[in-house]
Amino acid sequence: MKFYITAIIIFCAGLLNAQTVQSPSKEITVTFAIDASGRPNYTVSYKNKPVILKSGMGLEIKHLPALTGGFKAIETAQSTVDTSWKPVLGEVAEIRNNYNQLAIALEQVETGRRMNIIFRVFDEGVGFRYDFPKQPNLNYFIVSGENTEFNLAGDHKAFWIPGDFDSQEYAYNETLLSQIDNQKVDMNNGIGMKSIPQRYAVQSPLMMKSKDGLYINIFEAAVINYPVMHLQSDPAKHTLKSLLVPNAMGDMAFLQTPAHTPWRTIMVSDDARKILAQKMILNLNDPSAIDDTSWIKPMKYIGIWWEMHAGKSTWDMSGTQDAAQKTTATPRPHGATTANAKKYIDFAKKHGFEGLLIEGWNTGWEDWYNNWKEEVFDFTTPYPDFNVKEVSDYAKKNGVQLIMHHETSGSVSNYERRLDRAFKHMKDYGYQSVKSGYVGRIIPRGEFHDGQTMVNHYLYVVKRAAENKIMVDSHESARPTGVQRTWPNYIAAEAARGNEFNAWSVGNPPTHETILPFTRLLGGPMDYTPGIFEIKMNVYDPTKTEQVHTTLAKQLALYITMYSPLQMAADIPENYEKYPDAFQFIKDVETDWQDTKILEAEPGDYITIARKTKGKESWFLGAITDENTRTTTVSLDFLTPGKKYRAVIYQDGKTADWKNNPISYEIKTQEVTSKTKLKLILAAGGGTAISFMPIDK
Amino acid sequence: MKFYITAIIIFCAGLLNAQTVQSPSKEITVTFAIDASGRPNYTVSYKNKPVILKSGMGLEIKHLPALTGGFKAIETAQSTVDTSWKPVLGEVAEIRNNYNQLAIALEQVETGRRMNIIFRVFDEGVGFRYDFPKQPNLNYFIVSGENTEFNLAGDHKAFWIPGDFDSQEYAYNETLLSQIDNQKVDMNNGIGMKSIPQRYAVQSPLMMKSKDGLYINIFEAAVINYPVMHLQSDPAKHTLKSLLVPNAMGDMAFLQTPAHTPWRTIMVSDDARKILAQKMILNLNDPSAIDDTSWIKPMKYIGIWWEMHAGKSTWDMSGTQDAAQKTTATPRPHGATTANAKKYIDFAKKHGFEGLLIEGWNTGWEDWYNNWKEEVFDFTTPYPDFNVKEVSDYAKKNGVQLIMHHETSGSVSNYERRLDRAFKHMKDYGYQSVKSGYVGRIIPRGEFHDGQTMVNHYLYVVKRAAENKIMVDSHESARPTGVQRTWPNYIAAEAARGNEFNAWSVGNPPTHETILPFTRLLGGPMDYTPGIFEIKMNVYDPTKTEQVHTTLAKQLALYITMYSPLQMAADIPENYEKYPDAFQFIKDVETDWQDTKILEAEPGDYITIARKTKGKESWFLGAITDENTRTTTVSLDFLTPGKKYRAVIYQDGKTADWKNNPISYEIKTQEVTSKTKLKLILAAGGGTAISFMPIDK
Repeated sequence: MKFYITAIIIFCAGLLNAQTVQSPSKEITVTFAIDASGRPNYTVSYKNKPVILKSGMGLEIKHLPALTGGFKAIETAQSTVDTSWKPVLGEVAEIRNNYNQLAIALEQVETGRRMNIIFRVFDEGVGFRYDFPKQPNLNYFIVSGENTEFNLAGDHKAFWIPGDFDSQEYAYNETLLSQIDNQKVDMNNGIGMKSIPQRYAVQSPLMMKSKDGLYINIFEAAVINYPVMHLQSDPAKHTLKSLLVPNAMGDMAFLQTPAHTPWRTIMVSDDARKILAQKMILNLNDPSAIDDTSWIKPMKYIGIWWEMHAGKSTWDMSGTQDAAQKTTATPRPHGATTANAKKYIDFAKKHGFEGLLIEGWNTGWEDWYNNWKEEVFDFTTPYPDFNVKEVSDYAKKNGVQLIMHHETSGSVSNYERRLDRAFKHMKDYGYQSVKSGYVGRIIPRGEFHDGQTMVNHYLYVVKRAAENKIMVDSHESARPTGVQRTWPNYIAAEAARGNEFNAWSVGNPPTHETILPFTRLLGGPMDYTPGIFEIKMNVYDPTKTEQVHTTLAKQLALYITMYSPLQMAADIPENYEKYPDAFQFIKDVETDWQDTKILEAEPGDYITIARKTKGKESWFLGAITDENTRTTTVSLDFLTPGKKYRAVIYQDGKTADWKNNPISYEIKTQEVTSKTKLKLILAAGGGTAISFMPIDK
Repeated sequence: MKFYITAIIIFCAGLLNAQTVQSPSKEITVTFAIDASGRPNYTVSYKNKPVILKSGMGLEIKHLPALTGGFKAIETAQSTVDTSWKPVLGEVAEIRNNYNQLAIALEQVETGRRMNIIFRVFDEGVGFRYDFPKQPNLNYFIVSGENTEFNLAGDHKAFWIPGDFDSQEYAYNETLLSQIDNQKVDMNNGIGMKSIPQRYAVQSPLMMKSKDGLYINIFEAAVINYPVMHLQSDPAKHTLKSLLVPNAMGDMAFLQTPAHTPWRTIMVSDDARKILAQKMILNLNDPSAIDDTSWIKPMKYIGIWWEMHAGKSTWDMSGTQDAAQKTTATPRPHGATTANAKKYIDFAKKHGFEGLLIEGWNTGWEDWYNNWKEEVFDFTTPYPDFNVKEVSDYAKKNGVQLIMHHETSGSVSNYERRLDRAFKHMKDYGYQSVKSGYVGRIIPRGEFHDGQTMVNHYLYVVKRAAENKIMVDSHESARPTGVQRTWPNYIAAEAARGNEFNAWSVGNPPTHETILPFTRLLGGPMDYTPGIFEIKMNVYDPTKTEQVHTTLAKQLALYITMYSPLQMAADIPENYEKYPDAFQFIKDVETDWQDTKILEAEPGDYITIARKTKGKESWFLGAITDENTRTTTVSLDFLTPGKKYRAVIYQDGKTADWKNNPISYEIKTQEVTSKTKLKLILAAGGGTAISFMPIDK
């Protein structure tokens, strides 16, 4: 492990108000300055091309003069860090943390208040945050607005979703910055809970591409005790400004010094692959707060889950799911029965899946949705047809872990009240991980999914879970910002439009999975739930027109392109039994990695990634394309030189395409080495998945 | 036990829209009618005198047509109940529940929505509530306003406090209804947290007296899952209208059918004593929800408490109590030390007190106040100088129960999250009761102490406590409305301006305790914390001018006039040891009663009450006056005829008065019978306390 820090303190007051700091590679340059009004500002350039033009900084504080002007710099310091660390679970076994830091201590002349701005410049991009030291004149304070600007140097192409305070479950829009407009978004998209405050607000991570080929991404890291930052765009000027999510009172954040904001990040490269390979979001988070992480494990799992999305069964025992408590449809069978759970356990054992998620096991589902109701679930009472003890005993006997499900319906007050009992119930029956859900309007009423209250809630659950050695996979929560480095039991989250939308809505267009790694996944693993083999929902009901917008082969490739240490084989057992040869890839694929190579990447178009299993010689490759067919040749030079591997290639059938012939696939096996070049042919909406197993001599 | 119900269903549609119902005594008459616009209204008269003139009824529902008009009556029913029940703890051993009921089923013609109005007319007054049956067209709904009117028949004298959504800790104003004006209230009154929405809003219970001698009280019963009702007055018209406390969004109540509002109550009598003797608030609540109530016990207790209020010691271990974390005062000793606790345990054992409250035992007090801070207390971590195990072992060995203290600082989110752990900590160390506190702005932010969220919270704590066989005494909570009948482990609350204000503010005027039984105490027992012997705070610090605004003898009388099954001997042990003869009354007095006789009463002037000990022949009498001296002769005809009693009379000294000579008292003993008449002479701000012990032959 390399480790060195150098510090240069510059005392010359005349120089303090204008500072420059570069990335270790010197490709990225950040300047900091204070203008005539005392407002701090910064610029970012990459290889001498402007990325962020002069952009103002600062915050508004309730009942106090704004921290946006009247500043002078009283001290600055530069330092360098170059170290490395090992994530508990990850895309690589070791992560280098190398940056140059510029810290500016500011004083607001009239008030005497102190605020520091800290820049960290990595080869991948820039992070900065506001820091409020303990001081006599600022103790408790309320952030009423943040005025961080990101003034972009051009009218870039942007991959954006509306700046919704309650949901990120949108498909991406691909337009120029000047064309951002939430009013043009088709809102008939299956999202139940929307709160879009402004016409031109978008979410971060915001992925962009400039006309001269720069890939630029605005995001944030380490969102803790602070709301999520969305971005207020000005289409006329292609500028962005931080837009914090308010609480019920319209306040943004309640802080006490010493305190700091999350890191605001700007990644930039002329190579899209470097955006996907970035580790700066993790590096901007604190090291693990958990000493013994031996209980935190990667996992592949199946679930009593897709059958409900597909309409085969229901979450609620009565089989109606009618929130008005009327029977309006022919009741369907209850999914989470003791008998069905045993069937899934048998399947998991037979095919080597570590985990089984069972949703709809507990009372409350008969009237859970869309009523802003506080007391819905109690997290401990099973339906009468689900015997927790019998199922958990059977799972244990067969070496399968049950994954608990805590749907809160957004009633967080109720969940927090009952959390200790809910976790005790889990421990009593041997559950080691929980999938939580936040479908619906939040209670405490007036709070948004992305506000400070909820950000604190998600972390509260993770911390309590850690005390109980429980792993957490949250759905409908705020999107991750690398906090899983600090709390590695927070193994995955949904927090984007997942595969489920394909089952009962317009779904996710074929381009969707080529964008997510450039946006949502920059913050952390996503429980996207790939692996759907029966692509078209009309197999369940001939009147249905919904479908997954990929080929079957692309569903396999997603296990590699969509990083998560928790991966679901989302389809139902019957469907896997229909396609056992394709299913073999899901059984073989790993979920924790020694190394990762981003071979090809273009947001919205294609991604090809290869990953080496942690502690083994095997590799896996996933290649996906958007709605266009794609032919590419991939060099296998990532393989260990001189070693032979058996490659099993799962590719689209010759006539496959996502819309008309999605299930068609071919599997071929060939021996390869690091010198092999493989030609990959991807159907429209298609993909290729490959396993490389070393051939022992 | 008597029990009979009669029901008369009137089917004649022509008569449905106008109905009359009378009290069993026929003194009170209620008329119900529907006006031409379809709005329900009612009147109340007493002995043919108008009490409530025609007053409108109904509610506003968010996003739906208001339930204030367009109604027709579709069915009415009258019935009579006459039964009785035994409270677990109370002022009397058995309570008669006798009323005539009128139930009107209403249908809103245009919407088809159903609403029932139920009147119950007791000899003491009227209760009515809105009831929403389960119906296809109304399931979840949001009450956005309640338009219940109380149009009084004259410009009565009123005893009122501002309609503050966060505090009832005011001294009472005694003015005509037309003179109600919150802008004229001196707000330099020691209340930390005020939220007064309107100039003419007052709180209920609102006690009034008409010019022709009627005592009228507007209040409510069984406030469950609904906000507290304050009263919007119109000084010009002497009318009142319900003013519900909103949540953070401005909504009042989230309900699901079947549902109902609390009971709106109008008590009326030409004898003030009947207001104090009323049991209709309890009768309007449901019977006990707790099957085994054997663990619910009355209790006298002392506390490490007044010494902090008096400035002898502090809650926080560092001794500064500076919320800004600066040392601005000479530190004072920490009150809750192991050594001090043992001293109090010794005192409790020596003098026969069942309980000891210890405040300031846990970390957080060094920065707890007025910061709207979420994470203040964890309810389980003691200061290093307080050894929970050592203290609780010592208490157990000496037969003293420790009373836990949970100050939340208003951070209810934090308390609910930790409640299970807090109760487990109590059970681990043998605590059987808890005093909770809600000083400060509520978190979830935007909620008020009196809103639906908080009403639900207080009851949530009581229910969880019941599951753990824990008794609850809440401070700074919403005032009780008889819910302790249903949850008898909710043994007391503060919820009004308690004795503590005398220690460090302008205090409570001598009239205060003559009003509270007509207002706050109608809803349930108050932990007023009487028994202060060292009346003037300058004994602690010569610069102090604060004092208790009573004589010492009146402090004794309060144990009888201020009903509570939980009574504190609030002063510090040293002070009781100075006046052992007066202290004897506190040691002797009981807290649970077979019978209660209201001998004399005039709100704002005087109260004389006698109570018989439950299961014993002993009686106790308390007489108090306001700022005026008072001489009265009391007949002891409540005593058992033919029995002799030794009466110990604790009375004001001849030169006593609350301001200049408050501690002066005399004790005399005499033999009495039911034929004795006792002359009582009460000093200005004074009182008399008497114990009557039967003389065995």
